[in-house]
Amino acid sequence: MRKGKLLYAQSGGVTAVINATASAVIQTARAHGVRTLAARNGIIGVLREELYDTGKESPATIRALAHTPGGAFGSCRFKLKSIEADRERYARLIEVCRAHDIRYFLYNGGNDSADTSNKVSQLAAEFGWEMHCIGVPKTVDNDLAVTDCCPGFGSAAKYTAVSVREASLDVAAMAESSTKVFVYEVMGRHAGWLAAAGGLAGTGPDEAPHLILFPERPFDQADFLARVRATVARVGHCVVVVSEGLKQPDGRFVAEGGTKDAFGHSQLGGVGPTLAALVKDELGLKVHWTVPDYLQRSARHLASQTDFEHAVAVGKAAVEYALSGMNAVMPAIVRTSDAPYRWRLAPAPLAKVANHEKTMPKSFIRKDGYGITEACRRYLEPLIRGEAYPPYARDGLPDYRQIKGVRVPKRLPEYRIEDR
Amino acid sequence: MRKGKLLYAQSGGVTAVINATASAVIQTARAHGVRTLAARNGIIGVLREELYDTGKESPATIRALAHTPGGAFGSCRFKLKSIEADRERYARLIEVCRAHDIRYFLYNGGNDSADTSNKVSQLAAEFGWEMHCIGVPKTVDNDLAVTDCCPGFGSAAKYTAVSVREASLDVAAMAESSTKVFVYEVMGRHAGWLAAAGGLAGTGPDEAPHLILFPERPFDQADFLARVRATVARVGHCVVVVSEGLKQPDGRFVAEGGTKDAFGHSQLGGVGPTLAALVKDELGLKVHWTVPDYLQRSARHLASQTDFEHAVAVGKAAVEYALSGMNAVMPAIVRTSDAPYRWRLAPAPLAKVANHEKTMPKSFIRKDGYGITEACRRYLEPLIRGEAYPPYARDGLPDYRQIKGVRVPKRLPEYRIEDR
Repeated sequence: MRKGKLLYAQSGGVTAVINATASAVIQTARAHGVRTLAARNGIIGVLREELYDTGKESPATIRALAHTPGGAFGSCRFKLKSIEADRERYARLIEVCRAHDIRYFLYNGGNDSADTSNKVSQLAAEFGWEMHCIGVPKTVDNDLAVTDCCPGFGSAAKYTAVSVREASLDVAAMAESSTKVFVYEVMGRHAGWLAAAGGLAGTGPDEAPHLILFPERPFDQADFLARVRATVARVGHCVVVVSEGLKQPDGRFVAEGGTKDAFGHSQLGGVGPTLAALVKDELGLKVHWTVPDYLQRSARHLASQTDFEHAVAVGKAAVEYALSGMNAVMPAIVRTSDAPYRWRLAPAPLAKVANHEKTMPKSFIRKDGYGITEACRRYLEPLIRGEAYPPYARDGLPDYRQIKGVRVPKRLPEYRIEDR
Repeated sequence: MRKGKLLYAQSGGVTAVINATASAVIQTARAHGVRTLAARNGIIGVLREELYDTGKESPATIRALAHTPGGAFGSCRFKLKSIEADRERYARLIEVCRAHDIRYFLYNGGNDSADTSNKVSQLAAEFGWEMHCIGVPKTVDNDLAVTDCCPGFGSAAKYTAVSVREASLDVAAMAESSTKVFVYEVMGRHAGWLAAAGGLAGTGPDEAPHLILFPERPFDQADFLARVRATVARVGHCVVVVSEGLKQPDGRFVAEGGTKDAFGHSQLGGVGPTLAALVKDELGLKVHWTVPDYLQRSARHLASQTDFEHAVAVGKAAVEYALSGMNAVMPAIVRTSDAPYRWRLAPAPLAKVANHEKTMPKSFIRKDGYGITEACRRYLEPLIRGEAYPPYARDGLPDYRQIKGVRVPKRLPEYRIEDR
């Protein structure tokens, strides 16, 4: 066995393929003779010294994680602040790593996680603990800098494109005597990547979706309503894809929340039902809406093959980078050709990835602001290509697997995370 | 060629597999030398004499309909009243059938359509026009009488079970520091069949979904909240499946609608966001919710193989019934064994199907009212078995097809449908 262990942790919103990355990490480390511990609920588990021994899981379980959505070891929403502000926690992280002889630290997440990995790397060096910190990209939002795309996005994009097309066929069939406008709300608080993916459902101005509302473009209510009305007049119905992060011209979210209903309860509306109500009230048209919410990021049953391959590849590369002595880098996906689609991985410095947010380039949004361009389509299409279906059991459900979850005995005193 | 043509029409909410029925109808009729016309937008198209000539579609297109969701010829929400009240419209239907030499009338829908087919059959006899009227079952609500289940339901059920399981894995991974309660709203205004299907996602009291709210059981707010709180305390999170038709003890829908938000706009809330707001306000827990809406009934990408086979079989049988001289019947699915699952078709009189609504039997709902029984599971499981995937194109999207839609020339004067 090589000296030291590898610690793997998941962070932020999970995806349909983050466990494919986990599976690749553990298998690659095993192949190199390195033991992998996995933190329970991300960085929280590291702080609390709650670690799983992946060596106690059967090889079949580890392989099966590759087709299981969710986060097998638990993830977290927990951001460490600057080294100055959170020094004590960073110190604790290093202490736990030292106690368990962790020499390779792999953090699988988005912007915040890249930042955390980077800082852990700095602190480890400062504290004289030799440890290789590697960021592993993941996010359905596709908003990480440097990498061409993010594992998790392609599957959410495929789910969105397919679902928009399917629902649109439904609406088209019913529009004569029923629903005329359909509003589909996608995730993406600040970047319109998933909204754009909805655009793959159709080509040509009269194919659904007819209107896409991006968070990158302020909402113009009068113009939107005029376009809905015109589309219904021309096509017979209108399908709208809207990003949860759609903003008013003054910068507030259109679905600001915080309102109360007639019973004094909070309205957790979402922008989808908000726009639906607007269309109903202002245009008097029958409207339906959907908010897939977590379904779009957990739909492993419709994972994209390209996305799956990315997820496996970054897991494998992250281990190889760590074992080869790299530090404070992340395997980034580099696209070398659109058609045929070709890509490779290259190490990107975490400092360049951390805390950036990649929104849609102007060239990807149509001039009128309500659709995607051919350049955007060329970028997106390869990412949703191929179907990486999970195996199904006899009961008609996918054969998703859960870990046994055997904990590594604690070696340090109890630790409380305050101010959560 | 045999004398006379067959007229096929789609009615009510469409499903993932209604076009598989259409495809089977057209192919079976062709094989028997009978031409099939298809009404545009269901009965509305018959009244308006808007008929498609399916003979102008390529065999490849007709075959491809078997894997295409939506309603290929258009459907409608348009109910004919009693023969007395709507006599003039029934007469018009017969007149159109006579003008186009329609001798076989197949209406593909739910309760209302069975009723309509039955009445058309009576009027045709009264007017001395020999025509065989066959109902063809279809509805995601699974609420048709006589038949063991309804084509369209199995696929929506599979989509629901798989999506609940996937989203639940997501929630479980995040619950430590994020969402603790997840509310999943399913269709089913009066019958809890799709809510029950959500129950297939897990087994055992601590597996998601932890609580199912059926329209058959009045909502007890205090008890519900106590159970959510207890589940979160015990399991760490709580997944709730709720039927859109959940009712207050006084019989009103929980999501009655009609309320206005702070801007004076209608709240098209749905029961999902309503319960989510309740949990947030009363228990102070972080909550997410989803309303899949049309996605659940158009998800051809995850169609159940059993459901697909039912949909094809009822289409084929309906034509055979008509050609063999039957009238005012519907091919009903008869289950002969749960395990192994075995079924056959048998003609059921439309009079027995029409206007009944089959809700969940008491024996299918757990005593405490929040889950499904083993009997329910035995009934549901075969219906979601197998994956009838559509073929995918190079662009990563299913290869769904649309008809050319060549209209049959009109032979009658223009007709206006008033009072729509």
